[in-house]
This record gives sequence, structure tokens and C-alpha cells, in this order.
Amino acid sequence: MKIVCSQIDLKNSLSLVSRAVPSRPTHPILGNVLLVAEKGKNQVTLTGFDLTLGMRSSFTAEVEERGTITLPAKLLNDIIGHLPDGEVSFSFDEEELDDNPMVAINSLSGKFQLRGVRGDEYPELPTIDTDDKFLLPVTALKEGLKSALFSASSDETKQILTGLHLTRDGDSLEFAATDGHRLAVAKISEEIETDDSSNFALTIPSRALRELEKIISTSSVDDFVSLYVDEGQIVFELDNQSLTSRRLDGAYPNYNQLIPKTFERSIVVDRKMLINSLERVSVFADGKNNMVKFNLIASTNELNLSVEARELGNAKEVVNVEITGDDFQIGFNIKYLMDGLKAINSDNIKFSLNGATQPVIINPLSGVDMTYLIMPVQIKD
Amino acid sequence: MKIVCSQIDLKNSLSLVSRAVPSRPTHPILGNVLLVAEKGKNQVTLTGFDLTLGMRSSFTAEVEERGTITLPAKLLNDIIGHLPDGEVSFSFDEEELDDNPMVAINSLSGKFQLRGVRGDEYPELPTIDTDDKFLLPVTALKEGLKSALFSASSDETKQILTGLHLTRDGDSLEFAATDGHRLAVAKISEEIETDDSSNFALTIPSRALRELEKIISTSSVDDFVSLYVDEGQIVFELDNQSLTSRRLDGAYPNYNQLIPKTFERSIVVDRKMLINSLERVSVFADGKNNMVKFNLIASTNELNLSVEARELGNAKEVVNVEITGDDFQIGFNIKYLMDGLKAINSDNIKFSLNGATQPVIINPLSGVDMTYLIMPVQIKD
Repeated sequence: MKIVCSQIDLKNSLSLVSRAVPSRPTHPILGNVLLVAEKGKNQVTLTGFDLTLGMRSSFTAEVEERGTITLPAKLLNDIIGHLPDGEVSFSFDEEELDDNPMVAINSLSGKFQLRGVRGDEYPELPTIDTDDKFLLPVTALKEGLKSALFSASSDETKQILTGLHLTRDGDSLEFAATDGHRLAVAKISEEIETDDSSNFALTIPSRALRELEKIISTSSVDDFVSLYVDEGQIVFELDNQSLTSRRLDGAYPNYNQLIPKTFERSIVVDRKMLINSLERVSVFADGKNNMVKFNLIASTNELNLSVEARELGNAKEVVNVEITGDDFQIGFNIKYLMDGLKAINSDNIKFSLNGATQPVIINPLSGVDMTYLIMPVQIKD
Repeated sequence: MKIVCSQIDLKNSLSLVSRAVPSRPTHPILGNVLLVAEKGKNQVTLTGFDLTLGMRSSFTAEVEERGTITLPAKLLNDIIGHLPDGEVSFSFDEEELDDNPMVAINSLSGKFQLRGVRGDEYPELPTIDTDDKFLLPVTALKEGLKSALFSASSDETKQILTGLHLTRDGDSLEFAATDGHRLAVAKISEEIETDDSSNFALTIPSRALRELEKIISTSSVDDFVSLYVDEGQIVFELDNQSLTSRRLDGAYPNYNQLIPKTFERSIVVDRKMLINSLERVSVFADGKNNMVKFNLIASTNELNLSVEARELGNAKEVVNVEITGDDFQIGFNIKYLMDGLKAINSDNIKFSLNGATQPVIINPLSGVDMTYLIMPVQIKD
């Protein structure tokens, strides 16, 4: 192998695929990244893979001699990150390939030798057995993921609930996630007509989608992500980057039936003002006691917030709101409430309520069509 | 007690004194800060104290009723940090003082009640039995601490070596610190004549001096820090802030006799260029292997740096230097070397050397009069 590339292209690709390299690999070679240089293409492809999530990125390089090798991800990142801007070359002698060759990495200002491991010992990324692809607009993905992904469970024993359920139905994409205590659903109409018109419904691990969020965070508004799906795997592709993940098996809960259709009362409130007040009273909330009490005074349109930590003290705030219905008291897990308020992107929001133990719905009054359902916490006197 | 003060004054004082509040207090009250409001003075004083280091800060406040109370530092910081700019009031009923009263903290946008503990249960800060004070210019302190403090030992069993030795001799202040592997000495002439002319020599715990560094980091160049000293304690004072610490007992090593006076060879090198090269080769240095090899080629005035990690690989750099003497090889602990190079504030520096196992001296060629002594590491072949 002999290649010459730019430090910045290499650094960017490497930091992307390194996110799929496990910090404590179950097998040593999974701590490496795979580097493939193809002669005809003048292109180098890097791959990181932890057997669940795979990330691949290609960049332009001068390929003088083709070759395949794996290198320790952490050391390689350290080396490349410290190099100055400019050309970097990689080379090793193919004849030494059987003995884990020393790969020479040379730049304007330093010569490194790094022990490689043969590429054919690196596991193959699963391939997708289809050419059918769905084109997903980047803006729809950004909005949908921001609105729903935070509600997925982080408890690995909850399996299907650790993923986000993505449904395509005609022109609309629906993103849903729930951990059993709260549910977030965002419905986004695709702005642009695409060639494919098939519908799908699949559950994707949160971790893969968090990486997808990072990949699309810098792309332009009119980009599309290609999605390939088969029975077990999905692949997202954008430009020269791709992300491979297994799908989550099993039936996703029929969440739409959990959302009440009629309500006895409602509150309209300025979202940022409510967040600021909740942040202040939350100083008395902790792992054991994380309930904020909402006390609605209909006559004055006031929402009294309070958090009580019996031994330490308490905090109270008053927020001006618009109340429909009579005086009412209800308790929330302050963390779940804040998560939802922060994911919403609207100046004003509406709480729709029934009884003090029945699910509460929060909707933005503008922007993304989103529904956040949160179960109240029982107030003990 | 009833006081009204500004959120920003309170926040600044509180975050200062909280640095002396232990995160795991040996006695619950040490997790609190002491708040004293004196009627005549219209001033509030906060104190944090971990029985070794004490910090005190005063600020102007409207004192409607005097009082003394302690409040949990962490919760109080959380509350005050979340409040908007503006007035904050503290009040409690003196008649409830015996029962750990609830202290009402009110601001424009929230009411808090926080359980206090009587101030007379809080330990007294040690007092200094002298009115004699030394005036230390802030600029001299900044330069001296930056140049030497990093070399103090962090190993608590090394007692006196965990401190910095500060000597005043006529117009000059000398800062010295060593951990047994390296020694940093900075000699700074005081720019301004002061009233007091007595000399002193004392060893001060590093932790207290790191806090002093933060206190003086924002003060103006012509400020003076007052230093009060007695047998067991020292106090630094600047404006309305004070820092109290015990002194370290015992005789500080006679470090000046460790510094060689004659040398067989020397290197002059661009400091930043050397730091950049060392950072790149250091990717192969770790806890077990942290030696960088210097290979001096006199004929070409080249310094070859290399780090070898037998199994993983190696790194080499060439730096242009000015060499006096013949070809030579020497090894250094790369961390100790970097620490010294980063503390020096001069474009060019000089290494003065004798044999490969004898102490090496590094001096800046301009700026602060500083000497960094580092013991070489033996090169094994």
C-alpha cells in the first residue's frame, strides 16, 4: 500500500468511523479501523464496526499502490489529530503483510510507524440485500429525531423500547419513542416529492440514530439521506458516509391508542418561562424526590410550581398562564417534564389534561406537529 | 436576620468561598458556608473552611437585621446560580434559631426556603497573631506561581514537597518547588518599593496557592496581596477576599546546591516548535513507557526526538537547534519535560547539560528569571 491524502480529510473520516469503534473491544481487532485503498478509484475507505453498529467513510486520496490494513483507532486518532494541516502518506510493504507490518505514516513534520493487522481478519459489515432505497429529507430527519429520540428507553432490558419507531405513510414520516413513562410522537410531512412511494414501519436502535443525528447535523437543508432496509439490517447513506445497524425485532406498542382524544382542562404557557421556573425549583429535586407540583388557580390564571424536600427546604414559583377549566392539582416527574419542554421548538405550548392520574398531553402551538404524553406522579399528602 | 443584596455580588462571593468547602465533609456543618451580616457595616461576609484551607469574602448588602447562619453550600450555589440578575433577600426569625430555622430566600422570580444551621456550630477560622504584613505585588505572584507551582509533589506522603517554598530576600522573591524528579525555581525582583523590608522563608501548601492563583487571576497589575504570617498559619488578603492556610512544617531541601554551575554542552531551541514536536511523538508514550530520546547531531545542528513503544510502533521528529558540544544522546520523562516547557514564557530556551545521567537545566532566554532542573531517564538498549 502507498497512499497520499490530506490531513483534514483523513481526520474527519477517522473521527466519524471511530464512533463505531468500541472503547473496550471484545476482540482486539474491533479496536482497529479498517483502511482500504483501491487503485482505480483514487479513494480510501475507513470502517469502524462494533458488530452492532458500523460506520464507513470515504475520501479522495492519491493511491500509488492499493492495499488493505487495519490500525489501532485510538493511536491513529492521536497521531492524525496532532499532525499539522498538509499531506499525510501511509505505506507498508505487501510482502510483510503476514507478520502484521509496521505502517509508515509520514507528514511534513514527523515520521510514525504504527503496527497494523491484516484486513482480512476484520469482520465484514453486513450487506443489505436490496437496491430499493427510500430518500429521507435531512430536515425531516433532524426535526423528527430531535422531537422524539429523547423519549426512548435507555434500559437495555426493555429491548424494543430502546429504539425509535419510524413509519412512512404516503407523504408523512412519523417518529415515535417511549420508555413506558412518557411518549413522544412527531409527524412530519415530506416537503419534496420523491420517486419511491412505498410505505414502511421499522424500529431502529437509538444509538444508531444518535450517530445519524451527528452525521446530518452539518448537512444542508435540501440533502437527502438514502435508507436501505432488509429483514435484519438498515443502512443510512449520505454523501460518502454510511451507517449500518441491525433493526430491533418485535412488535412496537400501538402507541396511538394511548393518546387521549378528549380533555377536561388545558393550560397555555410560554415555554421558555416555564423552563426557567422549573430549572430554579429543580434545585430541590434529586434522585429520590423529583416531583414538581402544579397548582392551577383558574381565577387568576396562575400556575404555582413547587418542589418540596422535607428536610432541606422547598422552592415555589408563580407562572402566568391561560387556564381552561377549574382549579386543579397535579404532580410531574420534573426530569421527564423538562425533557419534553426542551425538545419542543415553539414559543407557546398547550397542556391538555383530564384527572390527576390520567395521561397529560403537551403540544407545541406552532412548528413541528408533535405530541408529548407524560404520566403524572401521584401527590402524597 | 434580614438582608438584601445583589445576585451577582452574592454569586461571586459564594463561588469563591465554596472552593474551600469539602465535597465530602467529615462533619456535616463543613458542607455549609457561614453567612454573617453585621448591622453597622452594611456588609455580608461568607466563609468556607475545610479545617485546612479557609476562604472568606465580603460584599455590600442592605442589612435590615443583623444575623449569623450557615447554609448548605451546594444547594445555595444551585439556587443563587439559577436566579436572574437583581435583588435577593435572606431572612429568618432569630427566635427560631435554636431549631435550625428555615431561611427564606426571595428573588424577583421565586421563593425558596432552605434549612440553616446555627453559626456558632461552625468552626472558627484560625487567627493570625500579628499585625505585620508583607505586601506582595500581584504580577510577581502570578509569574512566580506559574513558573514553579507545577513542580510541587502531589504525593501527600511527601509532606514538605507538596508545598512551594517562598523566600523573600531584600527586593527579590524566590519561588521554588520540587517533587524529587524535577525542580523549578523562579526569582522575581519586586518592581515597587514597599514599606516593609523584612525577609522571610516559608513553605505553603500547593492547594492554597492554586486558590490564590485564581483569586489574583483577574486583579489589575498594580495590585498588592497582603501576607500575614505566624508560626502555624498564613493569610493572604486582596480587596475583600481572604485565604487562610496552615504552613507546612519542616526544613525545605537546600535546592540551590542541586543546580550545577558548569556544563559540557548546550542546546538553544524554539520552545513552541519543540512543544509541538513533543506532543506529536508523545502519542506513543503512556504510563509504562514515557521516555523521549534526544539525539543531538552537532554537525547539522539537528535534534532528533524519538519515542519507541516496542509492540505498537514508534515516532520520530527532527527539530532544528543550535548545539554547543559534540554528538550526544539523553532520555527524558516526556511529561516532566513538557510541564517545564509549558510553564516557561520565552520564545527561545536553553538546555544546559553534562553527562547522560546528570541533572539538566532549562532556562528561558528572556522574561522571568527561571531555572528548571530535570533528571534524565536512563536509555536502555
